[in-house]
Amino acid sequence: MTGELPQRVEQARVARLATVDARGRPHVVPICFVLAGDVLYSAVDRKPKRSPRLKRLDNIRANPGVTVLVDHYEDDWSRLWWVRLRGRGRVLETGEERKRALALLAVKYQQYRAQPPDDAVIAIDLDDWLEWHA
Amino acid sequence: MTGELPQRVEQARVARLATVDARGRPHVVPICFVLAGDVLYSAVDRKPKRSPRLKRLDNIRANPGVTVLVDHYEDDWSRLWWVRLRGRGRVLETGEERKRALALLAVKYQQYRAQPPDDAVIAIDLDDWLEWHA
Repeated sequence: MTGELPQRVEQARVARLATVDARGRPHVVPICFVLAGDVLYSAVDRKPKRSPRLKRLDNIRANPGVTVLVDHYEDDWSRLWWVRLRGRGRVLETGEERKRALALLAVKYQQYRAQPPDDAVIAIDLDDWLEWHA
Repeated sequence: MTGELPQRVEQARVARLATVDARGRPHVVPICFVLAGDVLYSAVDRKPKRSPRLKRLDNIRANPGVTVLVDHYEDDWSRLWWVRLRGRGRVLETGEERKRALALLAVKYQQYRAQPPDDAVIAIDLDDWLEWHA
């Protein structure tokens, strides 16, 4: 990527991950995430099983092109901003990169220190970002 | 749709709209919106022109299947929830339905009363919704 991602992206606690399913339909979920250079990591937790949260993994395997939105809303619309990140997703089931990502996530989110995620990690190799503000 | 959409969807001030572009890549933007029965409306404003905000219209014309996410984040993860709405988008350039939608949006958002949107309205005929909470 060219340029430096705004610090507010690093600091954001939540983003939204958009993927495309095998039938070509959009899917979007809130994610917790951490940035490591040009790679964004997000963990998946199998609990609770009742929700179809793993659809994002199937989608990334079928269509690696993903988009992540970090945005700020408030009723004073002169203060709106968003940053949209595009990249290619990879699903890390095991291995060193997954471990490093989980360690970074645990630094950012104390919730992960209390209860480490037990499933795959999504890695997104970012190749483009766009910033907008009011 | 079956069942009743939770009131918290109606009350949410912002949602995220995921669409798919003509090349099959996901796109996601924050939107203001209003619900009218099984139809969700969101206005597009041409200002400021520097941002590629109209891409969502091209995408809906190419791929009407869209997904809208309304979610709540806080650091107490026991209080997380989201509602995901799926449907088919239509772009209203003119006409009575667009006018009614803008009137509804102006009831919900005083910002639109101060400065009415001047461009198309997106109508999404909702056919499915899924609720998740921690």
